[in-house]
Parts: sequence; structure tokens; C-alpha cells
Amino acid sequence: MTSSPAASAAALPTAAPAEARAAFRAGNVAPTSGIALGHTQANLISLPRDYAYDMLLFAQRNPKPCPVLEVTEPGSWESVLAPGADLRTDLPAYRIWEHGRLVRSPREVKDVWRDDLVTFLIGCSFSFETLLLDARVPLRHVEQGVNVPMYVTNRTCSPAGRMHGPLVVSMRPVPAEAVARAAAITALMPAVHGAPVHVGEPGALGIDDLGEPDFGEAVRVPDGDVPMFWACGVTSQAAVMRAAPPFAITHEPGHMFVTDARDTDYRIA
Amino acid sequence: MTSSPAASAAALPTAAPAEARAAFRAGNVAPTSGIALGHTQANLISLPRDYAYDMLLFAQRNPKPCPVLEVTEPGSWESVLAPGADLRTDLPAYRIWEHGRLVRSPREVKDVWRDDLVTFLIGCSFSFETLLLDARVPLRHVEQGVNVPMYVTNRTCSPAGRMHGPLVVSMRPVPAEAVARAAAITALMPAVHGAPVHVGEPGALGIDDLGEPDFGEAVRVPDGDVPMFWACGVTSQAAVMRAAPPFAITHEPGHMFVTDARDTDYRIA
Repeated sequence: MTSSPAASAAALPTAAPAEARAAFRAGNVAPTSGIALGHTQANLISLPRDYAYDMLLFAQRNPKPCPVLEVTEPGSWESVLAPGADLRTDLPAYRIWEHGRLVRSPREVKDVWRDDLVTFLIGCSFSFETLLLDARVPLRHVEQGVNVPMYVTNRTCSPAGRMHGPLVVSMRPVPAEAVARAAAITALMPAVHGAPVHVGEPGALGIDDLGEPDFGEAVRVPDGDVPMFWACGVTSQAAVMRAAPPFAITHEPGHMFVTDARDTDYRIA
Repeated sequence: MTSSPAASAAALPTAAPAEARAAFRAGNVAPTSGIALGHTQANLISLPRDYAYDMLLFAQRNPKPCPVLEVTEPGSWESVLAPGADLRTDLPAYRIWEHGRLVRSPREVKDVWRDDLVTFLIGCSFSFETLLLDARVPLRHVEQGVNVPMYVTNRTCSPAGRMHGPLVVSMRPVPAEAVARAAAITALMPAVHGAPVHVGEPGALGIDDLGEPDFGEAVRVPDGDVPMFWACGVTSQAAVMRAAPPFAITHEPGHMFVTDARDTDYRIA
């Protein structure tokens, strides 16, 4: 990285969003959980214009898993949520998909960018974690040093055009006395998945074993905790892959786009 | 109306939504304010499929004036918000537009329906009025027996494709002691315009004279009341007309689609 002004990875939690993006642009690869705390992170999905209406309609019909924060003009790599950023280089890692199949996981996507790509930035539940901690709701996956566990449920999303698929949820164990507080806090942030879709009773969602998540890592549920399930942005990525567009770009899971927006910008009250 | 099962207009406030729709289908024409109380009413915009992406993107970029409750499949006249309803006949009155110009205001639109029409149902601030009354926030336009006044502001919406235009707001005078309560209650209903965009100081919105609204009727502001301004669904109709699609159908202002959904369905907490 020679004389790059990029922040070192160790300094990123307190970095400004632009510093974190510069570090990723310079070649740092790191999950973004805990980076530039208090600033909104987003899922990225870039699709050919021909698929943009289906994607936007799928999001409209399934707003809890797919809260759209921004949609770019075709071909644009700029974001109003992060002026000066380059969506092609400023995420730590990307995935390239062809006909619904993962073909490559590069650090930047300048070489494969296309004029017809419309980019969707979709809200991420990392955005309410700071507010949960502020309200003394413990985050067990952070305490245990693992990625948040995610599960494919038995609930079906409302289809839209070529897009369809199951609801995917993230799970956080929460002490029984804090469940109501966690529900109330996240309800006020509908743009980042909002209130839980389900509390307790994993079996009713078709989840047989919390110890075997479909994405992320298992988190131990302490005695006295209740599993809380929030709709998850992976839902939209799964539906896009089923639609199997000829070409698509997404972020590498856990390696989100760090915006200049603040988590509190998405509190409605 | 002979032996129609339709409710009489006088009985409509307490009618079930399906009865109200049957009355409108049978030929009753009446504004829908106060009809089937507690049930969600919606703005209707039907556009050729070619304009649907611009409309949906405009709504995504301007969610406060344009909260989308439902988008139909092209050509469909059915609504998931009102099973059994016919979007071509069940509103009290419609407007037909050609190239952005109003050409006719019929009672039904079966004869001009097209296979490529995508219908957008957009949230309406009538949906929070019952909850305001429940919280003892008086509604001055109802007390004075006039339509709610609406104003074109100096704020510009984020454009999307061919759609662009100013933010339109509705105004309700609220006693100073109830302003905070009205703001808090409506903040919890983002799907029906949410919190006010502006409280007090009409001049800052470019409104020189509250007595001369651009739509609806003037309402007298009692001493001790503060004007509260909410984003208004007319914003999307205005932007569609500027886009001037070759053909479009909307509801007649104030003559909304009465759905089976309940206002409280749109409270997020």
C-alpha cells in the first residue's frame, strides 16, 4: 500500500466511512462488521437494466427482507449515499455471477463493469446493532466472535416477474427481559429490516436446528435467551440467483458497502 | 340501483369495504373521506408497462409522498388488498389522461382498459386521520366540512427517468399542545406518508398564502393552531402528468380505492 492515505485495517472501527472505503479500494479485504461504527452499510446487487423492474418490484412486495436504500442510473458507479465513492472498487470484495452461477470473487469489478448495470443498495441489519448495544441488548454473535447466523425459512416471498424464493432470516439470541426492547428499537428502523418477523419457536419457521445455519456461523444460545429472527438481505440475493440473469455482481457476504449515511438517519421516530 | 345489494351512500361510513365498493360499482359517486372508517384507502395510477419502472423508481426515491402499497401485474384489475374487487369499476370516479392531459372523468374504465396497464396503489393520509382523532387531535377540515387543502411546495422531488416534479403537501392545523402527538402518531405509519415533512412556517415551503391551496379547499387555522404539513400522494400524480405517458388512468381526487386492509395494518409499532 506504500504511501496510500488508506487507514490500516486495525484503525477501521473508528475510521470515517471514506477512509474505510479508501482502505478497501487500496486492496484491504476484511469483513465490514464493526467498521466505521454508526455509519450505514448496504448490500450491493448490480443487474442488467432488463432485470431492474423485477428486482425493484420484488423489493416493493417484500419490503422487510429487501429495503431498498438507493437505485443507481444504468452504468453509474456513483452513490448519493457516499459522494466520491466508486461502487466498482470501494467494497472489500465482490462476487460475479453468470446465469445464476458464481464464477469469480474479485477485489474490484472495474474490468467487468457494463453500461447497462443498475445497482441496488439494500439495507443491512448491521445498521441496528449499534442501537441495540446502546440499549444494553447484548449481541451474542459479536461476543462469541462469529458471523451472524442466517437461515432459509419455510416462508415464501411474494414473487415478482422472474424473481422468487424463500424468506431468509438472521437470528440473534436475546435475553428474555430484553426481547421487547429489541423488538421496539428495530421496529423504528423499517429501512434496515425493521421489527423481527418471528420471536422464539424456530420450528415454526421450518428451522430444525439452530446449530446449522444456511449462511454465516452458528451462535450459541445462552440459557435464558430467546432466538429473535429478522428478515435478511440475503433473501434478495437468493431470489436474483434464481432469476439467473446472464450477468450480475454482488458484494461478498459480510463485506458490505460502507456509506456516509448514519444508522440514525433510518430511525423514523 | 333497483335490487342491488349496494349500501346507500348515507350508510357508507359504517359499511364494510366490500359494500362501499359495491355501491360505487353500482353507480354511486361520492368522495370517500369517512367511508368504511378504519379501512385503508389508496390513490390509483394505471400506466402503460413502459412507464412502470420510472414510476416505481420515482416512488423509491420519494417514499414520503409516494408510499406504494401494491403494484399489479400488467393488465390485471385485481388487488391483493381487496380480494374480489375490480379496479376498473369499484372506485367512485376516475380520470383518463392522454399525453399528460385530462380528457375525461368517467365512473368506470372497463371500456378503455388495456392489457399493458400496470396499476399502482399509493398510500393516502386519510389512513392516519382515524388514529389522530382517537388521540384527540382535532381535524379542522372535517370540523369545517371541507376537503383537506394541498399545496405545491418549493421542494423538488428526486427525479426518476421521465418523472420529475415538486413535492405536494397536505396541511392540517393542529393545536400547539397536540403537535408533538400528531407527529409521533403519524411517524409510526410510514406507508401512509409518515411524519410531517414540515411544521409551522409555511413561507419556508414557498407557500405564501394558506388561504389559497393548489388543490382541495382552504381550511381556517384557529388561533393557537400550528399548520402541519404532510407529504401528499398528489405528488406522484403530478409527476406522472409531467412524464406525459400516451395513456393513463387515475382516481378522481378525493374518490379513492377503499381496500379491505386496516389503517392499523400500516402502523409499524
